[in-house]
Amino acid sequence: MQTDLSKYSIGDYRAGPKFKVLTWYLVNYFIFFSSIPFPSKFKVMLLRFFGAKVGVGVIIKPLVRIKNPWRLIVGNHCWIGEEVWIDNIEQVVIGNHVCLSQGAILLTGNHDYTKSNFPPKYDQVKIEDGVWICAKAIVCPGVVCKSHSILTVNSVATKDMEEMKIYSGNPAIFVRNREING
Amino acid sequence: MQTDLSKYSIGDYRAGPKFKVLTWYLVNYFIFFSSIPFPSKFKVMLLRFFGAKVGVGVIIKPLVRIKNPWRLIVGNHCWIGEEVWIDNIEQVVIGNHVCLSQGAILLTGNHDYTKSNFPPKYDQVKIEDGVWICAKAIVCPGVVCKSHSILTVNSVATKDMEEMKIYSGNPAIFVRNREING
Amino acid sequence: MQTDLSKYSIGDYRAGPKFKVLTWYLVNYFIFFSSIPFPSKFKVMLLRFFGAKVGVGVIIKPLVRIKNPWRLIVGNHCWIGEEVWIDNIEQVVIGNHVCLSQGAILLTGNHDYTKSNFPPKYDQVKIEDGVWICAKAIVCPGVVCKSHSILTVNSVATKDMEEMKIYSGNPAIFVRNREING
Repeated sequence: MQTDLSKYSIGDYRAGPKFKVLTWYLVNYFIFFSSIPFPSKFKVMLLRFFGAKVGVGVIIKPLVRIKNPWRLIVGNHCWIGEEVWIDNIEQVVIGNHVCLSQGAILLTGNHDYTKSNFPPKYDQVKIEDGVWICAKAIVCPGVVCKSHSILTVNSVATKDMEEMKIYSGNPAIFVRNREING
Repeated sequence: MQTDLSKYSIGDYRAGPKFKVLTWYLVNYFIFFSSIPFPSKFKVMLLRFFGAKVGVGVIIKPLVRIKNPWRLIVGNHCWIGEEVWIDNIEQVVIGNHVCLSQGAILLTGNHDYTKSNFPPKYDQVKIEDGVWICAKAIVCPGVVCKSHSILTVNSVATKDMEEMKIYSGNPAIFVRNREING
Repeated sequence: MQTDLSKYSIGDYRAGPKFKVLTWYLVNYFIFFSSIPFPSKFKVMLLRFFGAKVGVGVIIKPLVRIKNPWRLIVGNHCWIGEEVWIDNIEQVVIGNHVCLSQGAILLTGNHDYTKSNFPPKYDQVKIEDGVWICAKAIVCPGVVCKSHSILTVNSVATKDMEEMKIYSGNPAIFVRNREING
């Protein structure tokens, strides 16, 4: 059998009410994705207004993209680096003291490539406390990055990352333990 | 011997007539590469006007870059995702029902690094029917992605990909077969 | 112990005088990072004005980001490709006849993830004569890319690259020698 994208359908999925989706589109691309360094507090306020739960002390750099703030939970004292892309078609939950470095991507959308009509598959991403997603690293749909794990530069997490462990490569594999001793 | 970029020359290569190249530059960067979600039909019309052959049902997301539309052939029901970069200095041929996910890159330009003057080398890219180039994956010059092959997230195809096979990593290697059964 | 980003401090580090940093921010994002193809000579002049040492025959494509020009040295006849990101919190030294292809990234900032307050660590990057950093490749903090070495597409250099050797993958490993014979 062959792929037939003309038969593709998103089924029952709806990002949200049309007006909300459209308004957020504009805010996302003309404020968050802008080069202008709007204050983090202003951006956090906007995220909350659109339904995100965001803690205190969160820093959001320029050129960030967030798909659906109403599917986003961010804890306290997190950093969202320049050019980070949170492609949260599905829920993304970020704990406390998380660092998403520049260009990091969180993916929640996938396709069932075993079906001719290539149906979408969505899956949550969970980033627990103290995790560091390094520059240009990518977390795939369904992955849980457990407490204080690290994904190195440009690596791709396709499976859960265990607590206090460091992962590297594409697909990322365990390379060593993390220790915090001071 | 050493590299001497002051002796670099593109030789006989010409992208196209100067006026056409300049006009397309503006269309590319201010319409295709824009955050504004211009309708796909409008963008397809522009591509055709500049010499691309594009089929029906093609969807083109925002922030796309296409180097030379007059060196582009796209079949029916293809998707060109957000931030896709078709760097087609040379010909790029895309079949039917192809999905290029967000941030995918098709490269056609290279350099002969065994020569002191670092001369350019161009080579076509061919993406056959039903192929899926996943998010942030890169297809290198000269590569043929055969029917229904898949290149996983952030992977780099440096060699041809065989029919119905899935490739992953940098450089991408065969990881498993694809089956389509419904 | 756990990460506590609320205790983070950049210590004594200062990018530069506030007015200079702010002015460069604007120049960087609205001229260098722009889609408009400002002439390379104009951009080189701006870099020098802000304290960079830049040689002759340097080509700078659109959509480039440079963090601190006063921490940048570039030799003669270098190419800085489209969307290159020189994130030089610390010094970056680029030799002569160097090619940074599209989307290449030079990183100088890191964090000490063994400390609870996640302190910043900065380290220089040195790119010697004739080096080619291919498209989307990333050079990590502290790395020296020795004379005429090559980092392939989307690869990540985490260690020094030896003269006339080619490195590939994430992390990049030696794959073959480079020869220049004409």
